[in-house]
Amino acid sequence: MRASQFFISTLKEAPADAEIISHKLMMRTGMIRRLGSGIYTYMPLGLRIIRKIEKIIREEMNRSGAVELLMPLVQPAELWQETGRWEKYGPELLRIKDRHGRDFIIQPTSEEVVTDIARSVINSYRQMPVNFYHIQTKFRDERRPRFGLMRGREFTMKDAYSFDRHVEGMEKSYQIMFDTYTRIFTRIGLHFRSVAADNGTIGGTGSHEFHVIAETGEDALVYCPTSDYAANMEAAESLPPSDVRPAPAEAMQKVLTPGKKSCEDVTAFLNMPLEKSVKVIAAIRLDAAEDAPDRFAVILLRGDHDLNEIKTQKIIGPFRFAAEDEIVQYTGTPSGYLGPVGLDKKPGIAVYADHTVTVMGDFICGANEVDHHLTGVNWDRDVPLPPVIMDFRNVVEGDLSPDGKGTLAILRGIEVGHVFQLGTHYSSDMNATFLDENGKSQFMQMGCYGIGVTRIMGAAIEQNNDERGIIWPLPIAPFDIVLCPMGYERSELVRKTTDDLLAGLLEAGIDAILDDRGERPGVMFADWELIGVPHRVVIGERGLKENMLEYQGRRDDAATTVPQAEIMDFIQKKLAM
Amino acid sequence: MRASQFFISTLKEAPADAEIISHKLMMRTGMIRRLGSGIYTYMPLGLRIIRKIEKIIREEMNRSGAVELLMPLVQPAELWQETGRWEKYGPELLRIKDRHGRDFIIQPTSEEVVTDIARSVINSYRQMPVNFYHIQTKFRDERRPRFGLMRGREFTMKDAYSFDRHVEGMEKSYQIMFDTYTRIFTRIGLHFRSVAADNGTIGGTGSHEFHVIAETGEDALVYCPTSDYAANMEAAESLPPSDVRPAPAEAMQKVLTPGKKSCEDVTAFLNMPLEKSVKVIAAIRLDAAEDAPDRFAVILLRGDHDLNEIKTQKIIGPFRFAAEDEIVQYTGTPSGYLGPVGLDKKPGIAVYADHTVTVMGDFICGANEVDHHLTGVNWDRDVPLPPVIMDFRNVVEGDLSPDGKGTLAILRGIEVGHVFQLGTHYSSDMNATFLDENGKSQFMQMGCYGIGVTRIMGAAIEQNNDERGIIWPLPIAPFDIVLCPMGYERSELVRKTTDDLLAGLLEAGIDAILDDRGERPGVMFADWELIGVPHRVVIGERGLKENMLEYQGRRDDAATTVPQAEIMDFIQKKLAM
Repeated sequence: MRASQFFISTLKEAPADAEIISHKLMMRTGMIRRLGSGIYTYMPLGLRIIRKIEKIIREEMNRSGAVELLMPLVQPAELWQETGRWEKYGPELLRIKDRHGRDFIIQPTSEEVVTDIARSVINSYRQMPVNFYHIQTKFRDERRPRFGLMRGREFTMKDAYSFDRHVEGMEKSYQIMFDTYTRIFTRIGLHFRSVAADNGTIGGTGSHEFHVIAETGEDALVYCPTSDYAANMEAAESLPPSDVRPAPAEAMQKVLTPGKKSCEDVTAFLNMPLEKSVKVIAAIRLDAAEDAPDRFAVILLRGDHDLNEIKTQKIIGPFRFAAEDEIVQYTGTPSGYLGPVGLDKKPGIAVYADHTVTVMGDFICGANEVDHHLTGVNWDRDVPLPPVIMDFRNVVEGDLSPDGKGTLAILRGIEVGHVFQLGTHYSSDMNATFLDENGKSQFMQMGCYGIGVTRIMGAAIEQNNDERGIIWPLPIAPFDIVLCPMGYERSELVRKTTDDLLAGLLEAGIDAILDDRGERPGVMFADWELIGVPHRVVIGERGLKENMLEYQGRRDDAATTVPQAEIMDFIQKKLAM
Repeated sequence: MRASQFFISTLKEAPADAEIISHKLMMRTGMIRRLGSGIYTYMPLGLRIIRKIEKIIREEMNRSGAVELLMPLVQPAELWQETGRWEKYGPELLRIKDRHGRDFIIQPTSEEVVTDIARSVINSYRQMPVNFYHIQTKFRDERRPRFGLMRGREFTMKDAYSFDRHVEGMEKSYQIMFDTYTRIFTRIGLHFRSVAADNGTIGGTGSHEFHVIAETGEDALVYCPTSDYAANMEAAESLPPSDVRPAPAEAMQKVLTPGKKSCEDVTAFLNMPLEKSVKVIAAIRLDAAEDAPDRFAVILLRGDHDLNEIKTQKIIGPFRFAAEDEIVQYTGTPSGYLGPVGLDKKPGIAVYADHTVTVMGDFICGANEVDHHLTGVNWDRDVPLPPVIMDFRNVVEGDLSPDGKGTLAILRGIEVGHVFQLGTHYSSDMNATFLDENGKSQFMQMGCYGIGVTRIMGAAIEQNNDERGIIWPLPIAPFDIVLCPMGYERSELVRKTTDDLLAGLLEAGIDAILDDRGERPGVMFADWELIGVPHRVVIGERGLKENMLEYQGRRDDAATTVPQAEIMDFIQKKLAM
């Protein structure tokens, strides 16, 4: 490829609305161009990266035995009504009407359509396992699209859906996809981690996420450096504490804490460590009737811990945080002064405790009275333990690993893949059945598997950049190598050497670009460092007089002089590294 | 590829709503599956064909110097308002609202978006010519989607847009695309023709269509077998007649023609040839004010000719056919009895004639009186020639070719490509300018170029099928060759021979599939003939005992016996043919 026949258009400054480094660098390199909020054109340079990512995904999906098809973007509402997602899916589902006023959606995902296909084309257990996938545009009408390709509205996703005759088959299909994803992200050349995850609203029985590790990641990943344990913070389990509750040493005492509401403020005011305090989270259980005795729930956590909403929902059911007026209505006390002592005796309040709280002694908590807290509180002596004691909190660094093989550490990650065991969640809603070996009708066992194709591009940049620009992993770089001639127009020797080298590289299947735009060396080097092409060769008259060329890797501090006769070997070795 | 690892699901019967052969065969082979009206899933078998078509298009577009990008599906209304197409484009343009109530469309084409990109990234004449293309899903909300992939709502199109600094540059870009399209359709292996076409609503200065020749085609293609002349019926010119008008031989006479309204009925009733009659088409000119003297127009045509609406619109401006009550209101006579004699004297009627009418003598026409016609009518003697005489009709077989090099013939075709010279139609609406070599701001000269990717699949089938099914041109066949073993499970010899042959074919880069589904030979052969794979090798124990295999091409009447040792050579020769 010659740059003069391609289209390169870099910018000095990123637009002001680009908040994160990947977005800034994609805009500055002209890889993407904003058309509307969360909607981007992939310019020629950006599309090359997307295509390389897609190629790796496609090759590995095919190798796994999955079969590619292409499901439509515009899907009739009827199918989404069958599963109830027409109503349940939030406003991210773009609902539209055609010219006849019929309801459609633009696909954010394709469980409904693929299940409709399966129930039509699969009749017998002999036709399974089968795994259908496509690489297709998706639309999710995010409330606040941001971070460039990280949280856009229109994006490309690879989604796959496996159909099996029994649970063991589904588990095997799931494992094949898990292994395939591991190969895909390894081939793409990213530092990544798979973690156990929550199934969320998609339903089903088990799932893992694949994250690109980056300090700027939105997700917290919990792992044990001395074992295989890894989970998304949402799903990471905190073990019941092994400590024994200490015997009471202090008497319970009511203290004046005027205007001090948070555990931080109260413990600072009392000059006590934060871990000695207990906080109360008040919630409204959405599944309970207005007058149910357990509609109002309080959850007790250690002062330095955070509530894990996913785990909480699994224990108490769907909930929202209580509003201030509801807190006063149910407890008689404003928030900030609530505590377990006495609350347990109020009617209409369900009390829950995180298990860490139950081994605390001589603790501090609200006195259920404005401007007052209690100190030296002890379980049993001052207040009975709550009836339900479970794991309600986010784990923290240093917690014991659930596998008992060390302590937990936390990393930041960007989710780029997610695999789910769906079981019969969709097949039963849509009556997708087959005849088993005994001629009996059974629901298909499903799995679904997504990769955010365009998000990978953003994540790769978040992980690989420096002050000069992007540093692409070779497998997804827009070009493997750039040739920068000094005086391509002026010098016959430079031109011929460069043309010959380009021809040789292309012949060898190396994706090379020759910068024949006639820019000054400074502009040329800055452009290609910004764009992040991993390898560069400079061809200059001075060097050529001594039969030398200059090589520099994108991560190298300085150039290496390479004899002209050895350059092809040299480059091929560098590319193989 | 092994069929057991692929997904094949053929049907005995096509669904009742499949009207044309390509639709029927695509449904029966399971290549596509209907999701909604005009919306299809490309099943694994169908997608292979689409991908092969896309690959050829992409290779030739890249070879032509065009640069691939990817523009979004969902596009903001603002850009379409800039060109006025937000209002002008009919209900085929699917207009939608996002969650915030903002207006968007799903792209039916991308002139607006690409012009927006060009005005942002192209500043100087030095950056042109450039030709941006993408292969992307399109949506056109057809009123009555039909014929499978021929007139669907969601489909795949390759659309390209060239930007040039001057008209000569645009014409050169246009010619490059014309040549590229010729290469693309040649490589795909279809019998096709390019014809001059009307620019239609897309605007601009010139265009050609590419048609796949098929008896079932919607378009009539006019060509001269003894010259290069070729045009779509819409655009085909009919020359002014070279005949001299004969001298009057009969007297004009009013005859009773009770209830006879059409030229066919009148001439049959009078036992005269249809070509002796003149018909009157009544139209309302939409650009004329309600009370304008030329709002009501009549066009005179020879009785056996058809009005060409495109040509008519170019002469009289936008129009619609007059309703019966309007005809009576303006002429005083119901339709069916109108004629030129006397109509020329009525106020408020503009009379036009097709030039063929002006060389007619002793003709028959309506008498402007119910149940009466005139015979023996002659120009000048009975009625003056109308003021405007132009080309208003569709050409017919045997007409003189406009280039004077023979007579015209007519073929049926399916439009699969269209190239347009747009000039500054969009760039001036959207103020897409650049600085020329004198530093002066100029509008970019544009061209646009479309190929209906998914429609090619349908057109190829319309052109290539027989009673057994599809006959794919090799370059876009889902597989090059199918291996049909007889007793793959049973016979070690058959299995090993087949496996070795498959490995050899794949090694040689031949896209082979092995049918290891274990179906009976009859089912196996019928399936692959239906699917239309161009080459087949049968591997049977009986033949193998004599070291022989059986080859049959999809168009062959009988099988050929080929010595096992020669089979690879034999196949490679067949594939190269």
